Amino acid sequence: MPRFTRNYTKKIGLPAGALIHLGEQKVEEPELSVISYNEAEVRQAMPKSFGEVEQYRKPEMVLWLNIDGLHDTVLIDAAGKAFGIHPLVLEDILHVGQRPKIDEFEMFVFIVLRMLSYDDACERVVEEQVSLVLGDGFVLSFQEKPGDVFAAVRERILKGQTRIRRQKADYLAYALMDAVIDNYFHVLDRIEQKMERLDEELFSDSSMETFQRIGAMKKELILLRKSTWPLREIVGSITKSEFDVIDEKTLVYFRDVHDHIIHAIDILETFRDMASSMHDTYMNYVNNRMNEIMKVLTVIATIFIPLTFIAGIYGMNFQYMPELSWRWGYFGVLGMMLVLFAAMLVYFRRKKWF
Amino acid sequence: MPRFTRNYTKKIGLPAGALIHLGEQKVEEPELSVISYNEAEVRQAMPKSFGEVEQYRKPEMVLWLNIDGLHDTVLIDAAGKAFGIHPLVLEDILHVGQRPKIDEFEMFVFIVLRMLSYDDACERVVEEQVSLVLGDGFVLSFQEKPGDVFAAVRERILKGQTRIRRQKADYLAYALMDAVIDNYFHVLDRIEQKMERLDEELFSDSSMETFQRIGAMKKELILLRKSTWPLREIVGSITKSEFDVIDEKTLVYFRDVHDHIIHAIDILETFRDMASSMHDTYMNYVNNRMNEIMKVLTVIATIFIPLTFIAGIYGMNFQYMPELSWRWGYFGVLGMMLVLFAAMLVYFRRKKWF
Amino acid sequence: MPRFTRNYTKKIGLPAGALIHLGEQKVEEPELSVISYNEAEVRQAMPKSFGEVEQYRKPEMVLWLNIDGLHDTVLIDAAGKAFGIHPLVLEDILHVGQRPKIDEFEMFVFIVLRMLSYDDACERVVEEQVSLVLGDGFVLSFQEKPGDVFAAVRERILKGQTRIRRQKADYLAYALMDAVIDNYFHVLDRIEQKMERLDEELFSDSSMETFQRIGAMKKELILLRKSTWPLREIVGSITKSEFDVIDEKTLVYFRDVHDHIIHAIDILETFRDMASSMHDTYMNYVNNRMNEIMKVLTVIATIFIPLTFIAGIYGMNFQYMPELSWRWGYFGVLGMMLVLFAAMLVYFRRKKWF
Amino acid sequence: MPRFTRNYTKKIGLPAGALIHLGEQKVEEPELSVISYNEAEVRQAMPKSFGEVEQYRKPEMVLWLNIDGLHDTVLIDAAGKAFGIHPLVLEDILHVGQRPKIDEFEMFVFIVLRMLSYDDACERVVEEQVSLVLGDGFVLSFQEKPGDVFAAVRERILKGQTRIRRQKADYLAYALMDAVIDNYFHVLDRIEQKMERLDEELFSDSSMETFQRIGAMKKELILLRKSTWPLREIVGSITKSEFDVIDEKTLVYFRDVHDHIIHAIDILETFRDMASSMHDTYMNYVNNRMNEIMKVLTVIATIFIPLTFIAGIYGMNFQYMPELSWRWGYFGVLGMMLVLFAAMLVYFRRKKWF
Amino acid sequence: MPRFTRNYTKKIGLPAGALIHLGEQKVEEPELSVISYNEAEVRQAMPKSFGEVEQYRKPEMVLWLNIDGLHDTVLIDAAGKAFGIHPLVLEDILHVGQRPKIDEFEMFVFIVLRMLSYDDACERVVEEQVSLVLGDGFVLSFQEKPGDVFAAVRERILKGQTRIRRQKADYLAYALMDAVIDNYFHVLDRIEQKMERLDEELFSDSSMETFQRIGAMKKELILLRKSTWPLREIVGSITKSEFDVIDEKTLVYFRDVHDHIIHAIDILETFRDMASSMHDTYMNYVNNRMNEIMKVLTVIATIFIPLTFIAGIYGMNFQYMPELSWRWGYFGVLGMMLVLFAAMLVYFRRKKWF
Repeated sequence: MPRFTRNYTKKIGLPAGALIHLGEQKVEEPELSVISYNEAEVRQAMPKSFGEVEQYRKPEMVLWLNIDGLHDTVLIDAAGKAFGIHPLVLEDILHVGQRPKIDEFEMFVFIVLRMLSYDDACERVVEEQVSLVLGDGFVLSFQEKPGDVFAAVRERILKGQTRIRRQKADYLAYALMDAVIDNYFHVLDRIEQKMERLDEELFSDSSMETFQRIGAMKKELILLRKSTWPLREIVGSITKSEFDVIDEKTLVYFRDVHDHIIHAIDILETFRDMASSMHDTYMNYVNNRMNEIMKVLTVIATIFIPLTFIAGIYGMNFQYMPELSWRWGYFGVLGMMLVLFAAMLVYFRRKKWF
Repeated sequence: MPRFTRNYTKKIGLPAGALIHLGEQKVEEPELSVISYNEAEVRQAMPKSFGEVEQYRKPEMVLWLNIDGLHDTVLIDAAGKAFGIHPLVLEDILHVGQRPKIDEFEMFVFIVLRMLSYDDACERVVEEQVSLVLGDGFVLSFQEKPGDVFAAVRERILKGQTRIRRQKADYLAYALMDAVIDNYFHVLDRIEQKMERLDEELFSDSSMETFQRIGAMKKELILLRKSTWPLREIVGSITKSEFDVIDEKTLVYFRDVHDHIIHAIDILETFRDMASSMHDTYMNYVNNRMNEIMKVLTVIATIFIPLTFIAGIYGMNFQYMPELSWRWGYFGVLGMMLVLFAAMLVYFRRKKWF
Repeated sequence: MPRFTRNYTKKIGLPAGALIHLGEQKVEEPELSVISYNEAEVRQAMPKSFGEVEQYRKPEMVLWLNIDGLHDTVLIDAAGKAFGIHPLVLEDILHVGQRPKIDEFEMFVFIVLRMLSYDDACERVVEEQVSLVLGDGFVLSFQEKPGDVFAAVRERILKGQTRIRRQKADYLAYALMDAVIDNYFHVLDRIEQKMERLDEELFSDSSMETFQRIGAMKKELILLRKSTWPLREIVGSITKSEFDVIDEKTLVYFRDVHDHIIHAIDILETFRDMASSMHDTYMNYVNNRMNEIMKVLTVIATIFIPLTFIAGIYGMNFQYMPELSWRWGYFGVLGMMLVLFAAMLVYFRRKKWF
Repeated sequence: MPRFTRNYTKKIGLPAGALIHLGEQKVEEPELSVISYNEAEVRQAMPKSFGEVEQYRKPEMVLWLNIDGLHDTVLIDAAGKAFGIHPLVLEDILHVGQRPKIDEFEMFVFIVLRMLSYDDACERVVEEQVSLVLGDGFVLSFQEKPGDVFAAVRERILKGQTRIRRQKADYLAYALMDAVIDNYFHVLDRIEQKMERLDEELFSDSSMETFQRIGAMKKELILLRKSTWPLREIVGSITKSEFDVIDEKTLVYFRDVHDHIIHAIDILETFRDMASSMHDTYMNYVNNRMNEIMKVLTVIATIFIPLTFIAGIYGMNFQYMPELSWRWGYFGVLGMMLVLFAAMLVYFRRKKWF
Repeated sequence: MPRFTRNYTKKIGLPAGALIHLGEQKVEEPELSVISYNEAEVRQAMPKSFGEVEQYRKPEMVLWLNIDGLHDTVLIDAAGKAFGIHPLVLEDILHVGQRPKIDEFEMFVFIVLRMLSYDDACERVVEEQVSLVLGDGFVLSFQEKPGDVFAAVRERILKGQTRIRRQKADYLAYALMDAVIDNYFHVLDRIEQKMERLDEELFSDSSMETFQRIGAMKKELILLRKSTWPLREIVGSITKSEFDVIDEKTLVYFRDVHDHIIHAIDILETFRDMASSMHDTYMNYVNNRMNEIMKVLTVIATIFIPLTFIAGIYGMNFQYMPELSWRWGYFGVLGMMLVLFAAMLVYFRRKKWF
């Protein structure tokens, strides 16, 4: 169980805009990477300090600054001042674990996303906060730790005369959001594999542990929903062209992202239905086992208890029991027992008890 | 269980508008069919390559181009260029497994539908994506594999002076959508037959397998809902005349389609209620069996355990047990047992245990 | 189980507006009845063919044409042509089993209602489609078979100087709708009586069959909801004066109908809650029986199994068992058993097991 | 179970506005009481017939006419004519059992409320319809039987220079509604006491009857909801100043009533949650008892069945059974049994079965 | 179980605006504290009577008056008169137990919040009403008893030139609301710890009591929801700048509070899901135990009942039973029993019953 509240309590009582990193430190040193491009040229660098960033910011070029690692609040503060970002936004960037949201400010739009990846070792979904600041001519992206999810975008920019190089910063923001959301399908794919394994297990080898794994699966799906549903609203509000920094012409791409999100939500809901039906199947399986056990008990007890009673009768020590001295008494009783035994079997068979 | 995610992961990391077919190849060769008509004349052809299509496109005539089979991305790309279709739309056509949707572009409207058919062999519903592009004077339809669902529409056009020949492309789009949705009732009909069989089975021969078949039925209904509900919104938005390429006069026909969809949804929801109540009935049936079994066990055990105890008493080997030497001791005990037996039967009968 | 889909599949593939009757033929011959009235005079007739109707249509008089029986598509077609009714409307009139709806056309408003009646013989609710066409100066009503639900309205018109004679066609439409909806309370009343009987049975004589009857009751309530909920919307849209053919002054009467519908829905929802709680009560009853049975089994088994064991001890044939030769051994053991028996009884009594 | 439908069926087939009293007659004779006041003076009377009322109606004074008892339709009709009330409103006043609602007419506003009181004798909630007609300078209130709920308002008017005497008729309407709604808290208080008793009973003395009382409690809460939820809408629409006869300055008081209603709804919903959790607790309690019983059975049976088997072995009559002639055979077997007995006890204790 | 209704019934029948304190008296003497500040200067005092307050109210300075303890209605009345507060607002301040709400009046905004704290001794959440009145240049805050939740705000004001000193009264209101809501995370944190303990207990030591503690947890979460959900609406309406006394520039801070509330709600909903799944796990655990017990019973009974029957056979006293005199009869029977015993063990093992 992840801790939902502990980090948050660190900042109780502090004034708004106080910069404290609420997550764990996931990298040694924050890493900056800068790309500045237009259709004609592209420049890339990995500056060591924030001072070097400023030179890449030029009119007519799109600047993309990516920061991996958020524990260095001085660096974040400097970035905020250089690009004119409101302190409350910086606070939100550092307070990882935010709900996805979009906020418009005078000079920029601030977007919080949750990046999902699947940790194959622990067999569970890992969440990370990705913050985007989209201003006039620049995009800032903040990640908790380095990841390769933006690699494809970077490559497309560097590779040359593709569509992305002809477009403005809003298209870059779209490309980054698309990269984050495309990754959801990787995660959904892994979960689907897990469900398939669980589904097989359900009929071959169901146990208390199966139940717990279905429960864990459900919890994961709930967490995924919490990351995905708000996205729908966010991208939906973009497609309704509510934001000035995003151009009309780019909206068609955001509409495409919107479709992807809705598709992901559809799959998620289907998974939830499937997890519920697994739960039902498990409960039914357990019930059926119980019934089967009861049937065996009942068949055995119901057959042998009367027979034992008959044997008990002739085990009594009365002096005058005429049957005892009959020549065929013993075999007669055995025969009677056999008939009774057979009759009961037939009865139970007809009742489909075995 | 169909795989919801696998195809989708193929395209992660690709830029928007990259043309990759995400479905399975269901035909050897894509098949083109062209019909061009107005009230006075009609021309039909099955061109081998896309180049031949252009000659059928004439002002004052409605062009219907149907493509069966989507794996030839070059062909799709050519069609897109000829009719001025946005790359994102082509992407959506190829990425089968989309949610039904409607998107308006400057020159055309793009509609994604899910065609349902019932595979009698596998006893399950088969889904296929049908995409329609409705522009000024033309309708393009894309299917994954050839099917006879549009045959009735084709025939009506060819047959002659019917209403469809007097109308424009928007009426053709309506006719195609209507054909797709009418087919839903075929599928619902088959499902209803399946439910009826299941309902009978429920009381005659209920088993773990019945439970699984109810579950499978429920899953199918969920899939159907996912195809049907978005349609309601789509056609609803058409009837509110939000789209320029659809004429006011055609709206009354779309309103009719809207009624059909709502009717189909109503039936679906009724089926869902019925499937739920089947589930309840099954669970109750299982519970009742359990109770019945327990009753038999209890009746038998409760009758014979005390009797066996009495027999046990007189099977003891004490030297001084006066009853043993009584002349009628044995028969007295037998009689006592009989009385006890009868009393218990009466008691259980009164309690309605059998 | 009524068949939801079978009729509908008859018309798959046909063009919109094709006139086919989808219901069963419920009368030998369709029956026409015409009433034409204003405040001063009233004329009534039962024309044999449609040709005779036309003469009753006069300015300044309200014409009410009622047709019972829908299988004669030629007649319906003639009516449609005479009153200028759109072919899609005629189609809807013939395709019985429609969802209640209201559609506005240029010259008239088309209303589909579901008439409910309670078949005392079969103990179930019977549905029938009633279609109304309200135009300028006329109301057409279509029923599947003759019924007495409109008799009260007819009588009020014929009887004389009542409010209905002073009003226009829209008031007549209101009166007919009111008659249909008032009938719902008859049906609800019968269902309530059925529920009361079921409620009594629940505690006196619960069985698998009770469960099935609760289930059947629930299904009936679902069907009723499907007829009633859409009505709320329909009449609601009327009261918002969205339709031109309905006068402002008549709206207050439709508001009254609206209240009745909401009241009926309220009762329906209460019945649903009650049916659910009956289900719960039944399940609890079954559980309680099970517990009771288990208690009896446990009490009997727990008392006699140890006693039988003791008897078994002294039934062993060891040569050296000193107790066997004691003078009071037998009675001592009997006494010991009695004490054990009593102790167990006290224990179970204290545990409240019987 | 109250009868929901029976009264309603009385009026099926009658035209709108027909005056029939649908409730039971709860008083011998309807009782009229009139108060006419302004800041300076107040007059009160109990007229015997409606004719005497008219003289109290004066400009610049607020007239409050209260009628207790609704079976005298002639009286109601006279009141309607004197104050210009629409026949449909009079119908609603007489058709008790209405859903709470508010309707605006040209000259007045018509409000239906449900008054709740708790019948201590029958331990159940009693409902009564209260209708208010608020016109320019007058308020009419109709109750099914005399009650003391309006006594506090009457006293405040008579007592003297309080706020109510300075205000208009709309404030009087507010005061009456407030009195009705305040009473809900009395009822909620009684229900809470009942729940507390039930909650205690749940752990001390749970039985089938407890289950039924929880069910009855739930039904009562459902009825309460039906009276309360519509009120929220009604008073909400008043606070949005949709009605002309209610002055802007009085709205703040209706806002206060709105808060009370929402508070009552909050409490109701909490009670519903509590009733549900009582249900769960009861089910769990029953399950636990069952488990406990099964454990006892299992422990006893599992211990003694094997022991009895051993005794059975040495009760066999084979001629050659060497153990039987051993000197310590009997005591050896007894010892063995004791060891087995102890081992089982330890095993069950470790499994926490007792 | 807290009493929801009792206090409320005290005021039934009283006119609106009557000042009665509905809570318990939680302090000996109400405590007043005044802070008056602007960017340049700050003054603080703890006046003994309300008369001293007035001198601190100056133009260009923000006045914050905090009152702890509400039972002195005379004091509250004086405050109301001094700041021009509507009697209904004073009533709401004294009627603690209100639902959170925001009301706008001509000269001020009135906000009711619920402050939550966690009572470590009783292990439960404690609620207290906090009322804020935000007017032009002043904020009044009313608490039921002294608490340290506003201490951080007070300190920030006194400490010096921080942002709060440069802002107006609306920022102060924000700071106080933020302090109240930040405290929710403390409470959520404690609840999370409790859930973790419960989760562990669930698998180690589940009992009837665990069930009750899960139920208590659920009730607490329901109470929390009732405090939190209305806040969302309240702060949401502030951020839509519906209130005049709150400046545009301060809205960004309220947006931040809005995010916090939504985050708290998210956590709450997650906790609810977790509590539900704990409930399921508990039920499953109980079921599994039951199954395990039944299995043991069945295995033991099914093995020994047939064996006992065999022993019973050879315990019969027939004179002619040939096996009895066979030399190896006894050992043969023992051997046969052993074989049967082993066979059953194998059978059960294969069925995975132990």
